[in-house]
Amino acid sequence: MNELIKEIQQFRDDRDWGGNHDARSLAISISLEASELLECFQWRSGEDSIAYDKQAIVDEMADVFIYLLQFSDVLGEDLIMAARQKMKKNAIKYPNPTKS
Amino acid sequence: MNELIKEIQQFRDDRDWGGNHDARSLAISISLEASELLECFQWRSGEDSIAYDKQAIVDEMADVFIYLLQFSDVLGEDLIMAARQKMKKNAIKYPNPTKS
Amino acid sequence: MNELIKEIQQFRDDRDWGGNHDARSLAISISLEASELLECFQWRSGEDSIAYDKQAIVDEMADVFIYLLQFSDVLGEDLIMAARQKMKKNAIKYPNPTKS
Amino acid sequence: MNELIKEIQQFRDDRDWGGNHDARSLAISISLEASELLECFQWRSGEDSIAYDKQAIVDEMADVFIYLLQFSDVLGEDLIMAARQKMKKNAIKYPNPTKS
Repeated sequence: MNELIKEIQQFRDDRDWGGNHDARSLAISISLEASELLECFQWRSGEDSIAYDKQAIVDEMADVFIYLLQFSDVLGEDLIMAARQKMKKNAIKYPNPTKS
Repeated sequence: MNELIKEIQQFRDDRDWGGNHDARSLAISISLEASELLECFQWRSGEDSIAYDKQAIVDEMADVFIYLLQFSDVLGEDLIMAARQKMKKNAIKYPNPTKS
Repeated sequence: MNELIKEIQQFRDDRDWGGNHDARSLAISISLEASELLECFQWRSGEDSIAYDKQAIVDEMADVFIYLLQFSDVLGEDLIMAARQKMKKNAIKYPNPTKS
Repeated sequence: MNELIKEIQQFRDDRDWGGNHDARSLAISISLEASELLECFQWRSGEDSIAYDKQAIVDEMADVFIYLLQFSDVLGEDLIMAARQKMKKNAIKYPNPTKS
């Protein structure tokens, strides 16, 4: 994943786009890409949407991830570690009913 | 990352939440979590928002990632491979001006 | 506003689009149009975005409103009355500091 | 509607909130409120969501409208006129199949 982040940074720097990539703009971009992903499901069920154009869905999913990686990098935080820590909080908020 | 996906699945299955996690509902969830992340930046600049409550931002970022991992899993696609392939498309769409 | 709602219904019915316009799909559409509006401001300040392409912004704003009207119609609720009632709740939640 | 806009402005000015209400921040707010509206439909069908808590849905719909009115005011554009003009563009983009 760290290698991928470097590739994204290289891509961005080659195009001189770094100046716009502050955390607020990246948060906007993540939200916009998430909406483009959702748009693939606007008028159809989940299964029908995937059958209709799976590649478009995979591409939009990738766009959300690419911006999320840039965002995590600006924050100086690792996505996987952040997810693990959030899962621990979730486990406290929603206790496991199978362990009682 | 695959290990993390398994942990998320385990968490979901322990709580019997699998039934709602079709691709359309997960796309909605990704969009909603992306909005909660953006909400941290609603009334402040990027820097001020991070200074105000970085942990809240990291947690919201993690939530987007957790749903994105579940979504990729429902699709049967690897996030990192999807991102790499999308970067290649982006490189064609936006050619590298430093290599001309 | 009621006249405008009738025009929108007529437009939709002429095109046989009514079947897809349940409340959940319309809520998705409102969110997607709101994102398209936000997209106009992705890489620029508010003033610069308006200077760059005001008509695009007005059109996206109109799209949010058109879906919002359809949504209110499906719900059987009047937008202006709903806003007035919400303002009253807001006034209780955030008391007026000039009247103390 | 113009009266309602004045009430919203009064509410905002009483609380000294005007400074934050530039077009970009308002576009973010519209998107966030649209997501809160969509959140009411996250795990249920349209009908079930309305049956579950219609008042919450009406309140979220109102919030989108309140920010949309403020946004239109900052832009100096009338929502109903903007919607009428957009409907005309839509009618050209998607011709009426019943008039051929």
